[in-house]
Amino acid sequence: MKIFMYPGSFDPVTNGHIDIIQRASAICDKLIVAVLVNQSKKSLFSLDERVELLKKALVDCPKIEVCSFSGLLVKYAREMGAHVIIKGLRAISDYEYELQMATLNKKLDEKIETLFMMASVNYSFLSSSIVKDIALLGGDIEGLVPNVIKSDIIEKIKGKN
Amino acid sequence: MKIFMYPGSFDPVTNGHIDIIQRASAICDKLIVAVLVNQSKKSLFSLDERVELLKKALVDCPKIEVCSFSGLLVKYAREMGAHVIIKGLRAISDYEYELQMATLNKKLDEKIETLFMMASVNYSFLSSSIVKDIALLGGDIEGLVPNVIKSDIIEKIKGKN
Amino acid sequence: MKIFMYPGSFDPVTNGHIDIIQRASAICDKLIVAVLVNQSKKSLFSLDERVELLKKALVDCPKIEVCSFSGLLVKYAREMGAHVIIKGLRAISDYEYELQMATLNKKLDEKIETLFMMASVNYSFLSSSIVKDIALLGGDIEGLVPNVIKSDIIEKIKGKN
Amino acid sequence: MKIFMYPGSFDPVTNGHIDIIQRASAICDKLIVAVLVNQSKKSLFSLDERVELLKKALVDCPKIEVCSFSGLLVKYAREMGAHVIIKGLRAISDYEYELQMATLNKKLDEKIETLFMMASVNYSFLSSSIVKDIALLGGDIEGLVPNVIKSDIIEKIKGKN
Amino acid sequence: MKIFMYPGSFDPVTNGHIDIIQRASAICDKLIVAVLVNQSKKSLFSLDERVELLKKALVDCPKIEVCSFSGLLVKYAREMGAHVIIKGLRAISDYEYELQMATLNKKLDEKIETLFMMASVNYSFLSSSIVKDIALLGGDIEGLVPNVIKSDIIEKIKGKN
Amino acid sequence: MKIFMYPGSFDPVTNGHIDIIQRASAICDKLIVAVLVNQSKKSLFSLDERVELLKKALVDCPKIEVCSFSGLLVKYAREMGAHVIIKGLRAISDYEYELQMATLNKKLDEKIETLFMMASVNYSFLSSSIVKDIALLGGDIEGLVPNVIKSDIIEKIKGKN
Repeated sequence: MKIFMYPGSFDPVTNGHIDIIQRASAICDKLIVAVLVNQSKKSLFSLDERVELLKKALVDCPKIEVCSFSGLLVKYAREMGAHVIIKGLRAISDYEYELQMATLNKKLDEKIETLFMMASVNYSFLSSSIVKDIALLGGDIEGLVPNVIKSDIIEKIKGKN
Repeated sequence: MKIFMYPGSFDPVTNGHIDIIQRASAICDKLIVAVLVNQSKKSLFSLDERVELLKKALVDCPKIEVCSFSGLLVKYAREMGAHVIIKGLRAISDYEYELQMATLNKKLDEKIETLFMMASVNYSFLSSSIVKDIALLGGDIEGLVPNVIKSDIIEKIKGKN
Repeated sequence: MKIFMYPGSFDPVTNGHIDIIQRASAICDKLIVAVLVNQSKKSLFSLDERVELLKKALVDCPKIEVCSFSGLLVKYAREMGAHVIIKGLRAISDYEYELQMATLNKKLDEKIETLFMMASVNYSFLSSSIVKDIALLGGDIEGLVPNVIKSDIIEKIKGKN
Repeated sequence: MKIFMYPGSFDPVTNGHIDIIQRASAICDKLIVAVLVNQSKKSLFSLDERVELLKKALVDCPKIEVCSFSGLLVKYAREMGAHVIIKGLRAISDYEYELQMATLNKKLDEKIETLFMMASVNYSFLSSSIVKDIALLGGDIEGLVPNVIKSDIIEKIKGKN
Repeated sequence: MKIFMYPGSFDPVTNGHIDIIQRASAICDKLIVAVLVNQSKKSLFSLDERVELLKKALVDCPKIEVCSFSGLLVKYAREMGAHVIIKGLRAISDYEYELQMATLNKKLDEKIETLFMMASVNYSFLSSSIVKDIALLGGDIEGLVPNVIKSDIIEKIKGKN
Repeated sequence: MKIFMYPGSFDPVTNGHIDIIQRASAICDKLIVAVLVNQSKKSLFSLDERVELLKKALVDCPKIEVCSFSGLLVKYAREMGAHVIIKGLRAISDYEYELQMATLNKKLDEKIETLFMMASVNYSFLSSSIVKDIALLGGDIEGLVPNVIKSDIIEKIKGKN
């Protein structure tokens, strides 16, 4: 069985993430969406909230499992039986960072392979930060995040201000 | 009437900004220099000070107006009657970020166009951060900022230390 | 009067070019589309054909003029009264080449300014070469070039094979 | 069954290609190495020779099939039942070109997905052109190409000079 | 006498730094490794500790001197008689930042030249941050830092948690 | 004795090359400017002419020697006693190609080190191709090439047309 792992902060999940998740799940037998417990970066949503938003957005996708993890990514992938890490690429800056991480992960565990997908052009400008910035400035996030979680994000932002 | 808007933090304005302002103002009928109220990033100069330094440096330029704004840039541009946002490009990292912002702004308001100017080679290395770093380390900022505001910057840096 | 010049080979014009032309013409009073007489690169379409395809595709655009030129771009821009050269940017490789050209042109004539527009995400992958390659390999160029010139391109490609 | 396709010119195959082929074949059920019939670029080795060198180098790999094709890549992938195109990435210039191609191929056939693998650091500098240049200048290509085809390449280069 | 200066934070020194130090020291008569007193960025190791780790790792290298400095780099280089600053380059993002710094330093003191070395491919993914991240997540840093300081780093990380 | 080698096509030498040559010669004891016998690329000036133009432009520089070579660069460097290859960097595309070449040359001869210098901002847009293009189009190459060879270039271009 081909198990892929798609790691990230998902603070919150965007339509760019959903696009990668759907395209990746069509290629493998099971896709584990692995939410990273960020120790250094402060996230807007708690770990539990980030997992919940993902589950809500991915409710009709039987091949997809949402988990959270701390520690080394390659170690978690191996524990979960995933031999492929899937990452989305948007810009050059992504590319360089991801190249560095893929090389490092290969060094830490040579059995785990990293595969990259280009973001769809419609989402090439999109990131969790941009969603939060627009919501914070009172702009419309329609089409940037899954519809079912739109109100959760707007309420969270309101609560913070 | 062609109204362009040149947004930024201007913390403080440098000769690189002045170069873009002068070149851009030659192309349009009115150029609005729009100082961003930064909510997340801490600025060295207050919003009022940043506006004042710009006004001092641009005192002889009748086509140029200095304002400040918070909220979405495209919304402010529309309110002010500007249909063009002008941005300076120095390096690849600028380019990627600005491409992302231009695409996003087009999505938020398709009537507002973003135009880019390459920084003059003489100012390609220059940024507000570099001016502050050099002043902080006791280096000479002659030629990096307009002469009329040089002493304001040095005094501010001294006060902070 | 603000006259912009949009130079290129247009071998043939694509929907990416048309997008830049329409967005640029909304900002200026007159836009001159300047077809370059290529001395070194061999073009598929002759100079006359490239001009004709542009005129056909831009038939309803009163502010736009299609011309051809040889020699230095800045010299031609000056002769035609254009003080702005407009260029589209897609990728980093464009960016570097265009930065080099803009700097050079500034050195050759400092009164001529170069402005850049980001290609729309829908056309970020598109170029004249790609259109020719797809047509040559029997693929569908629908949506890649203006509808009115689609059959001209397909016939030309057939004639070459 | 997960069938991946790895297209290229392979003029000639290098250890960089072999590395991608082996890593990719570990992820799928069958990997089709698809040699491109180059119409525009002149190759050193004929199509048959390029296929032969690949077969010689991949003799012990049961999951791998070597084929050649002309025409649109996505059309050939579909005919062969491959729903994934795999590409290796080395440098930024690769990245931009491959991003453009992946976006185009998605437009031509949205059922075909492109996945990217980073080249191993040991082969990040390696390309078919570099192998040919070194051999032509009398340098040693040991370690750059599979051992079983080393003498074929050296003889070919000698014959050309 | 050719004196080169290699500046950095070295928080902590990695095998990537050691590689540049050894290659650079083979080209000059004396190499000054200059540890930067970071005022803005918080370092894991104190200035004294960073200097000590470097001295421990470079104990058998007679041509190399380890110092620390604050203030402008070019001023310190001039005081120490170094007319060349040596920097390592890994990725594009390094390149852009270093280009900016080299241009600035040339402006501040045109007698000081900056030279760049490409990182060895084996260390292209390596940085002080990555070493700290891996150690923090319980991964193995063998081969990433000099053996003689490995335990110092692990103990420090343990102490912080 | 520190001997550096600066290789290139120099078709023809520009002020950008001269800038690198002068800055590099200040760091070493002897600088060998090594003109490459191009087998694949057609050059405008013959090998002898390219060497002559360099000698004419560098007549007052006692530490500099102009030579020509064919074959592997590292082999020639070793024969001439040079242990350092010096290269100028302008743009990202240079950077990637040069990184690839430096890695390859390190593999071919690990005793030869490659050092990079950033082009001065004033020459960041300049290349031999641009000089030839401008001269061909009747533009002014004043300031782009050494004054003593300006007329040689213009006459050569006239002869070709």
